[in-house]
Amino acid sequence: MHLGRLNHVGVATPSITDAIPYWRDVMGATGIGEPFDLPAQGVKVCFVDTPNTQIELIEPLGPESPIAAFLQKNPAGGQHHLCYEVPDIAEAKAWFEEQGARLLGEPRIGAHGTPIFFVHPRDMGGVLTEIMESPRGGH
Amino acid sequence: MHLGRLNHVGVATPSITDAIPYWRDVMGATGIGEPFDLPAQGVKVCFVDTPNTQIELIEPLGPESPIAAFLQKNPAGGQHHLCYEVPDIAEAKAWFEEQGARLLGEPRIGAHGTPIFFVHPRDMGGVLTEIMESPRGGH
Repeated sequence: MHLGRLNHVGVATPSITDAIPYWRDVMGATGIGEPFDLPAQGVKVCFVDTPNTQIELIEPLGPESPIAAFLQKNPAGGQHHLCYEVPDIAEAKAWFEEQGARLLGEPRIGAHGTPIFFVHPRDMGGVLTEIMESPRGGH
Repeated sequence: MHLGRLNHVGVATPSITDAIPYWRDVMGATGIGEPFDLPAQGVKVCFVDTPNTQIELIEPLGPESPIAAFLQKNPAGGQHHLCYEVPDIAEAKAWFEEQGARLLGEPRIGAHGTPIFFVHPRDMGGVLTEIMESPRGGH
């Protein structure tokens, strides 16, 4: 496997509504997408464009959200995961399993509409790692 | 100010020597720089290239290192900071100070040989944020 593009950095936030003025007015982001719910992941999502990658703001959809515990520990929010692109999700799954890495569930459709899976931070140098099939047609 | 390139994601690690085989053999990185000491920051540093940005592996140079406390809380390592590029560090400093953001010290020379400063995570949505003057001649 070859290390692919860093598709995005996942940043947890208690409120996307409150985070948007920070990204627009302090950081100077001009490409801020419309927030949308991703019920299968238990999060609301909003992408902020940088010139070379994206920040994925994620907010819990409810107390059962997988990021609720993270926000209890980090009430102001913080860096949550890194997402790398791969050409083929099935090949990537087989690859990481061969390396003995623990996948967190089966591949499913992610925020960009392509299949993704997460790998346990214990096997990724402490970093929760998302692996995402590249969108067709590239970038 | 306009949001600049994500120059790198800083990832703390207890051992760059131990992290390199993971990046090379599991993640498939082909561009892994030579580790070097950055005594002014109290860290050893190693850059790993992705197609669109870099991962900056950082290891404490000693118990007084600013990342020693982070590694006590996260012994396996983990995401430590995000670094964005700006065209002019003095303008960026004035900008963030106008926004009421707390800078962590004065600008100093960073791992890429250009001036950098850090902004307190409390003013950056919980994310320790490095602001870096772009290298001359671009990328």
